[in-house]
Amino acid sequence: MNLIKTLAPAAALIALPQLGLAQEAAPEGAAAAQTQFILNSLLFLVGGFLVFWMAAGFAMLEAGLVRSKNVTMQLTKNMGLFSLAAIMYWLIGYNIMYPGDGNWIIEGVFGTIGPKDIKSDIDAGGYSNASDFFFQLMFCATTASIVSGTMAERVKLWPFLAFVVVLTGVIYPTEASWQWGGGWLSQIGFADFAGSTLVHATGGFAALAGALVLGPRIGKYAKDGRVVPIPGSNLALATLGTFILWLGWFGFNGGSQLAMGTLEDADAVAQIFANTNMAAAAGAVAAMVLTQVMYGKTDLTMVLNGALAGLVSITAEPLAPSLFQALIIGGIGGVIAVFTVPMLDRMRIDDVVGAIPVHLIAGFWGTFIVAWTNDEASFVTQIIGFAAIGAFVFVVSYVVFMILKATVGLRVGEEEEINGLDMAELGMEAYPEFAKG
Amino acid sequence: MNLIKTLAPAAALIALPQLGLAQEAAPEGAAAAQTQFILNSLLFLVGGFLVFWMAAGFAMLEAGLVRSKNVTMQLTKNMGLFSLAAIMYWLIGYNIMYPGDGNWIIEGVFGTIGPKDIKSDIDAGGYSNASDFFFQLMFCATTASIVSGTMAERVKLWPFLAFVVVLTGVIYPTEASWQWGGGWLSQIGFADFAGSTLVHATGGFAALAGALVLGPRIGKYAKDGRVVPIPGSNLALATLGTFILWLGWFGFNGGSQLAMGTLEDADAVAQIFANTNMAAAAGAVAAMVLTQVMYGKTDLTMVLNGALAGLVSITAEPLAPSLFQALIIGGIGGVIAVFTVPMLDRMRIDDVVGAIPVHLIAGFWGTFIVAWTNDEASFVTQIIGFAAIGAFVFVVSYVVFMILKATVGLRVGEEEEINGLDMAELGMEAYPEFAKG
Amino acid sequence: MNLIKTLAPAAALIALPQLGLAQEAAPEGAAAAQTQFILNSLLFLVGGFLVFWMAAGFAMLEAGLVRSKNVTMQLTKNMGLFSLAAIMYWLIGYNIMYPGDGNWIIEGVFGTIGPKDIKSDIDAGGYSNASDFFFQLMFCATTASIVSGTMAERVKLWPFLAFVVVLTGVIYPTEASWQWGGGWLSQIGFADFAGSTLVHATGGFAALAGALVLGPRIGKYAKDGRVVPIPGSNLALATLGTFILWLGWFGFNGGSQLAMGTLEDADAVAQIFANTNMAAAAGAVAAMVLTQVMYGKTDLTMVLNGALAGLVSITAEPLAPSLFQALIIGGIGGVIAVFTVPMLDRMRIDDVVGAIPVHLIAGFWGTFIVAWTNDEASFVTQIIGFAAIGAFVFVVSYVVFMILKATVGLRVGEEEEINGLDMAELGMEAYPEFAKG
Repeated sequence: MNLIKTLAPAAALIALPQLGLAQEAAPEGAAAAQTQFILNSLLFLVGGFLVFWMAAGFAMLEAGLVRSKNVTMQLTKNMGLFSLAAIMYWLIGYNIMYPGDGNWIIEGVFGTIGPKDIKSDIDAGGYSNASDFFFQLMFCATTASIVSGTMAERVKLWPFLAFVVVLTGVIYPTEASWQWGGGWLSQIGFADFAGSTLVHATGGFAALAGALVLGPRIGKYAKDGRVVPIPGSNLALATLGTFILWLGWFGFNGGSQLAMGTLEDADAVAQIFANTNMAAAAGAVAAMVLTQVMYGKTDLTMVLNGALAGLVSITAEPLAPSLFQALIIGGIGGVIAVFTVPMLDRMRIDDVVGAIPVHLIAGFWGTFIVAWTNDEASFVTQIIGFAAIGAFVFVVSYVVFMILKATVGLRVGEEEEINGLDMAELGMEAYPEFAKG
Repeated sequence: MNLIKTLAPAAALIALPQLGLAQEAAPEGAAAAQTQFILNSLLFLVGGFLVFWMAAGFAMLEAGLVRSKNVTMQLTKNMGLFSLAAIMYWLIGYNIMYPGDGNWIIEGVFGTIGPKDIKSDIDAGGYSNASDFFFQLMFCATTASIVSGTMAERVKLWPFLAFVVVLTGVIYPTEASWQWGGGWLSQIGFADFAGSTLVHATGGFAALAGALVLGPRIGKYAKDGRVVPIPGSNLALATLGTFILWLGWFGFNGGSQLAMGTLEDADAVAQIFANTNMAAAAGAVAAMVLTQVMYGKTDLTMVLNGALAGLVSITAEPLAPSLFQALIIGGIGGVIAVFTVPMLDRMRIDDVVGAIPVHLIAGFWGTFIVAWTNDEASFVTQIIGFAAIGAFVFVVSYVVFMILKATVGLRVGEEEEINGLDMAELGMEAYPEFAKG
Repeated sequence: MNLIKTLAPAAALIALPQLGLAQEAAPEGAAAAQTQFILNSLLFLVGGFLVFWMAAGFAMLEAGLVRSKNVTMQLTKNMGLFSLAAIMYWLIGYNIMYPGDGNWIIEGVFGTIGPKDIKSDIDAGGYSNASDFFFQLMFCATTASIVSGTMAERVKLWPFLAFVVVLTGVIYPTEASWQWGGGWLSQIGFADFAGSTLVHATGGFAALAGALVLGPRIGKYAKDGRVVPIPGSNLALATLGTFILWLGWFGFNGGSQLAMGTLEDADAVAQIFANTNMAAAAGAVAAMVLTQVMYGKTDLTMVLNGALAGLVSITAEPLAPSLFQALIIGGIGGVIAVFTVPMLDRMRIDDVVGAIPVHLIAGFWGTFIVAWTNDEASFVTQIIGFAAIGAFVFVVSYVVFMILKATVGLRVGEEEEINGLDMAELGMEAYPEFAKG
């Protein structure tokens, strides 16, 4: 996904201005340009609804990995964060991310209340602007979904949602503009096809800042130094969530080709689908084998995280690798997940669902390794880009979380945490009829 | 979705009769008409499978909002109602809805048993008839899904399914023919793009009739006037169901553009996707904020209903509004859900999942407000259309329910209701191993 | 899905070699060929992600139908089997299935580590090779999903996964090559459009071999001859899984048209969608009515299996039947499920989820009845094809299972089985907080 607002498909740009809208009056070649416009828009729409579906995947994954006393809260946060992201990205985020499009805030939101905000200029390029907005919005929301898992089981609802407003309205659009908005990272040659860094590590860095400011859950780290496992309450939901994410990722990576109107683009989308699937499979198998070897038992939650880490790893470059390379990249992603989950625990960073290993650390791996398969990328530039975005996102997120902590408070009280956020904050249990064992 | 059987895309109609089937022999312009036919059909198929998915969404939403002792019944009803809708809509409904297509029942079903029933006449228009049938069928089934939630936890299986047969075979097709079949409502200028009234309020009116005939669940309204909350047994399922419905709604509204073969149509589908998403998000946020302000706690089930009410509200006109207008329309939908759920309780109408507020009342709002954004609609005509369909659906449904009540009986016995429908009617628990708390 | 590697769409083959890649330089008619390539590839990708989604459907169906003490294991197996299938089908399966493509293993996997393995030759035919690989891979994985349900609650994790490696790397690709790879079955006129035999009965035969080698679960068949029902732990999950499978089946059958670039193909895909839906609905209704009549209570698990049996039944020929014929074919599929589930129990074959009735026996029915609606098929050839594949798959699977049993052991110990595989083999419960009733 490169410079999408500045570089439209060349053929379409050439052909469309000549194109009358009535098909029968179209000059030579115009029908194909029309078809390209439709197919490109269709890719955004199908890709977009698949990425929307990832919001449900995160919700199910997180609801399955928290304790039953915090499930309603986790579900509420996921519904809330997606909805707020949808509004904030429209209100300011999209405009920040693509600054070249002008004073769209003034004109579109506070100025005319009419069909002016996100409407397509059909002559402007090879796809419907509304389809692009729909697709981009889903990426912004994904970033917020990542954060909510790490901070589960102790963060207050409204302060968390306040952070989501800043993240989706300002933080994500700002760093994404550096690359996808045609900014300085794209100019120095940073490569991040579908967002291993721009989306996943960004979510991971924000989650890391949140985990540091919040501190670990009560009882997670014993005084004698032991790490106390806190098992998830519903692994069927967690597995469902992972399958949903895997499915949605075809849209995430495939849609980031941004065009399907030429043979090359259609073939590229297909290769991306195949590579994305391979990386996920390799990540899952790597985690499955590794936990069996290391611990003597296969660990399902690690298999799920392995698949997700494989997906994050291939996201920075899902097109250039061969299937064998995709297998290697995704498999190492799975290995990373298995090793870094306990590493975080040793550092006393309490990440409820493993989002930091999966999205931040595998996100680094995926970003770095682009230079292996994509000749136009360099390892140094990849590290620079990752570090720059990481520093920006982490520092700003940390400051925002500290401000929230100092003002409205970020964490629920001790008693509320022990009793569960569902009854304490929301007064509603997720499974009210089921007895606790 | 206007007059779909009478008005096919003009360009396709012009081009296709000249079209030989072999591509290389096609005259000037024909390739594009061929492409249009394919893309239009594709929109119906993708839209159709997304709306099919809504059947799963309703099943999960309802299974999550009933008590665990009634979950198997709710699942059975949802599987059954969709399957019966699929058969009834083919057997008679589709023919009632589009009467211009002739004596298709006789010829297709009871006459020749061969490839004659729903087969495309490729020369007839700009899409495959089979794709249209597939898409329309899903709308019919949605209507039935809405009813089952309201009447949960006390209605007998087979009488409910008997009502579904009438609803999907006769009631829905009849009122839908008034508008989408080119009938009198479409002639007076009623506007209901994807069915705020034709599908959602219709389901809601049938549900209201059912709730009135059935009466409330035992224990819902105490003798001293208090309303006793009966919490849902599994909010993770309910949230999953809402995400599924949100996803399916992109097909519901986007597919109702009925064409994707031109630039304008593709752009319209994209704008519909963006508006649909915005309305859902606004409905969820409105409900989230409002329940926090009104009750001091955010209510997840209201957030879910808020999102759904936002979706219903935008369904009557998902294309004309700007994103800001979509936010207003959907947000007010969410407010409506929050205020009308307790209102129904004050009226002693027991709607287990809140389907009447979400589908009927927000359906009215969505239908009414079309005149704000669509210059061709008038507030008066919108009210007339809503009232006419509402009166027809409510009266016929009420009569059918009364007949069922007087003959086979509509409601399970008191003991069966208290013990749960799963064991009493089906002999099978949904969660047999889990202890009740 | 016939001979897909040897017969590409004729029009595309004619047009594409003349085609320069830049659209504006394309000769007369080439734009349409380009569009065909894109639309055909798109069908594979959309069909492919829908069939991917079936993996989640099997996982949820099976997780819902086993006891809660074996849920983590069932989820792990489903994640593992899909991931291994993805790797094995790439490593050797795809090459075995389409032998005409040459020494692809050597060149693609162990030779060059570069963009050589599954890359499209754009000039070679009417679709992207990568899209075809992605689609075909999902079929291979489906075969493995079927097996895991039957063998649940007693098979060890790693021996089961070892069988999956053989099934997806060798057994499935070998028998599938007989038909879809242009082998002897296709040459004698066997007809199996989307795989009632090649996928579903193959999975069913492997499952039968596994069930025979494993033996029944402890306590399933009492010493006095009674069959002890072992209810599933979560029917909401099982129903969700069935809805997912139903949705995925549109991709399974519709995608098997293998092309969407002409009017006829698009219309065929649409008819397949409509027929597939009808067969599923008819199977569900048949099972619903039949269990009510036979047992006095509607049985939800039979309704689910009825829908699935209807889907399997229409899979061998989803295009030729009229909707009425699809109703008959699917309905009889549902009847078959209801009658053969207890029949297997009488034979002391313990099939936890009913996969043998649904996939093997309804798979036979669907394969056999092709000759009713497809003039080019004969009942005799259908039986020959089914028997040949069945014998091959059963015998090889049986041998592999026996070898596994004799070497590493196939079944967990008695104590592990009674305590549940989750704690014994994996050390992780799926629902750790919920008390057992």
